[in-house]
Amino acid sequence: MNKRNAFYAQSGGVTAVINATACGIIETARKHKNWIGKVYAGRDGIIGALTEDLIDTSRETPAAIRALKHTPGGAFGSCRYKLKGLDQNRAQYERLIEVFRAHNIGYFFYNGGGDSADTCLKVSQLSETLGFPIQAIHVPKTVDNDLPFTDQCPGFGSVAKYIAVSIKEAALDVMSMSRTSTRVFILEVMGRHAGWIAASAGLAGEKPGEPPHIILFPEITFDEEKFLAKVKKSVDQNDYCVIAVSEGVHNSDGKFLAEAGSRDAFGHAQLGGVATVIAQLVKTKLGYKYHYAVADYLQRSARHIASKTDLDQAYAVGKAAVEFALKGHNAVMPTIVRKSDKPYRWKIGMAKLSDVANREKMLPRSYITKDGFGITPACRRYLAPLIAGEAYPPYDKGLPKYMSLRNRAVRKKLKTGFKL
Amino acid sequence: MNKRNAFYAQSGGVTAVINATACGIIETARKHKNWIGKVYAGRDGIIGALTEDLIDTSRETPAAIRALKHTPGGAFGSCRYKLKGLDQNRAQYERLIEVFRAHNIGYFFYNGGGDSADTCLKVSQLSETLGFPIQAIHVPKTVDNDLPFTDQCPGFGSVAKYIAVSIKEAALDVMSMSRTSTRVFILEVMGRHAGWIAASAGLAGEKPGEPPHIILFPEITFDEEKFLAKVKKSVDQNDYCVIAVSEGVHNSDGKFLAEAGSRDAFGHAQLGGVATVIAQLVKTKLGYKYHYAVADYLQRSARHIASKTDLDQAYAVGKAAVEFALKGHNAVMPTIVRKSDKPYRWKIGMAKLSDVANREKMLPRSYITKDGFGITPACRRYLAPLIAGEAYPPYDKGLPKYMSLRNRAVRKKLKTGFKL
Repeated sequence: MNKRNAFYAQSGGVTAVINATACGIIETARKHKNWIGKVYAGRDGIIGALTEDLIDTSRETPAAIRALKHTPGGAFGSCRYKLKGLDQNRAQYERLIEVFRAHNIGYFFYNGGGDSADTCLKVSQLSETLGFPIQAIHVPKTVDNDLPFTDQCPGFGSVAKYIAVSIKEAALDVMSMSRTSTRVFILEVMGRHAGWIAASAGLAGEKPGEPPHIILFPEITFDEEKFLAKVKKSVDQNDYCVIAVSEGVHNSDGKFLAEAGSRDAFGHAQLGGVATVIAQLVKTKLGYKYHYAVADYLQRSARHIASKTDLDQAYAVGKAAVEFALKGHNAVMPTIVRKSDKPYRWKIGMAKLSDVANREKMLPRSYITKDGFGITPACRRYLAPLIAGEAYPPYDKGLPKYMSLRNRAVRKKLKTGFKL
Repeated sequence: MNKRNAFYAQSGGVTAVINATACGIIETARKHKNWIGKVYAGRDGIIGALTEDLIDTSRETPAAIRALKHTPGGAFGSCRYKLKGLDQNRAQYERLIEVFRAHNIGYFFYNGGGDSADTCLKVSQLSETLGFPIQAIHVPKTVDNDLPFTDQCPGFGSVAKYIAVSIKEAALDVMSMSRTSTRVFILEVMGRHAGWIAASAGLAGEKPGEPPHIILFPEITFDEEKFLAKVKKSVDQNDYCVIAVSEGVHNSDGKFLAEAGSRDAFGHAQLGGVATVIAQLVKTKLGYKYHYAVADYLQRSARHIASKTDLDQAYAVGKAAVEFALKGHNAVMPTIVRKSDKPYRWKIGMAKLSDVANREKMLPRSYITKDGFGITPACRRYLAPLIAGEAYPPYDKGLPKYMSLRNRAVRKKLKTGFKL
């Protein structure tokens, strides 16, 4: 086996721990210098490969790479650039191989969600066709937690922890004031298709009556009447009502509530996300004072309250990806395998990319209570270990010390550019 | 001096550390049992005093009281019930004195902002008139940081830290993706009248070009053209633009942007807060993809990322309030006095309530850069020490262990109720 370089790219929305995966890959590769040369990172994800804009991670000190473990965001840049299907744009894939050939890249580590898994599979297939084999390993990452075969996706546990902690704290605030002020608090969370993040809000309340009192899932069609009755009941019983709402909640027409839900007296659509729609509904129909928060990027970048379990797993899949490559595997993805719930134990497994690609793991109906507004004990059993443990970043003068890499470019070798 | 009981109430919006002040008061009072009997807390703030709904804090264990130090929200309930002026509703004040007389209450600790200071002053004056002297001590608390005479207000430092940390993290996210996705990120923060919280976002960026690139203060009239030019410049230079916007930003007519700013093609006002207005403006006029977050209650309840400095000071003002009372002071407020910036040193001072009441401390113009979009070195020097230090709560199974007190009621002694 000749010594060849590795390519690593971050794809799609970044997370609080995707850099921990980068750290796992780079540190593990550095331990096997007889087999793996340099790790080149794509600047802005796969775009860096297409445009031959590679970052030489060997120019970074061990301390800088180690610091990736506590730095959120995407250290090398990510992108929402989606590779087309092979039949639609074969040139994109051929270009990738051309760049890899020029830089003697034999390992392709692609760190992303479902779309990326598909891309990774195609790269693997085409490289063989074109007579330049590279081992393509997909490394799981997505806050949406919707990749199949892995018990969970690195990035999700930290969002889940952020949401559970935040709604628990905000609920204490609302509760203190509810007799004379705000009655209803709404937290809008991510997850356009799958309700995993919304479900994690449910971890905040363990006993009956504890907030959040209502979770609105994308899996459950929004029923205005039922929802309003539930809000009223909660206010009657507890003086207040705390609601977690997924951005993906939709009505019976299949339209997102954020787009379809709220119209003024003249029938004009209103601005704002789903939290605004829910808030207005509560005010108009029930007359309660409300507050709402929109967590947006804060939830997926909140490294300051990352889950230790999630961090460990993010690192572990990076490490495993390199180890798989060294063992000669191709077109696979490291997975997290749950060995037991209590005590929580896990190990690394392996899935074939041909199985993983283009499949989404939705929140099972059995994880949602019968009334559609809460999580079941089975869901809690699944989620609870994923938020366990704290992994605080170092601080200086009251702020986290996040690493900014030098990100030195590798000298280009190709004469041709590439138009994206 | 006869042994008399103490009354303590939380007033107005709660904070991540107001319970630390409660802890300071109760622990210090318990150390002086020869002088102070029991500490009775008002259930839901001053409403508890008016309705004779008192909580007997002596029924709580030392461990429970200690745990208040790491528990956000208002442990005894707070309220937005505002006492009227003496001339408008003398009966309210007379009722307070009646309740205090019935329960042998000689110390009145009122934990709140500017309005509460005024109430506290009036209680002090009237109690003497009615021949039932109580020592009324105001204990500062407000995330708005707008009380005069104190270098800062407990509660503010923790919000400032939350905002600075959150925007720093979200900026890393946006930066990673900006070449192909979101260009502009907007974080809406509290502070309807004073820009202290908005200013704290500025702590996240130390060097030129570092985010946040724009801060919109309530003190600076919103200039659409200038703002859009600044956004464009930031995107041109950095690929992205991170904006912190105060909910109190207003236009040249003096109207809040959140209310006046955004109208659809038919002239109908649009829903949503100021972040939505700014986001739509950026999209409509510049065409950039945006994301926005609304921190709302998350910012003032985020005990998980509270400032150690703030926590220490919140406890210290509670302790000092009791010590002032024991020394015979009346109608005063403990303050934080800054002794030096570097190293940061502070001590407790004292202000007269007659000076404090009805005065707001606004963000000085010298703390805002000339262009109106950033903070000056003087502002940074003021703010930086207030977010220093971490004070993590204990965790269990991935979630903070927040204390829920028993809050046992004191037996009523009065025959009459009170209509609020």
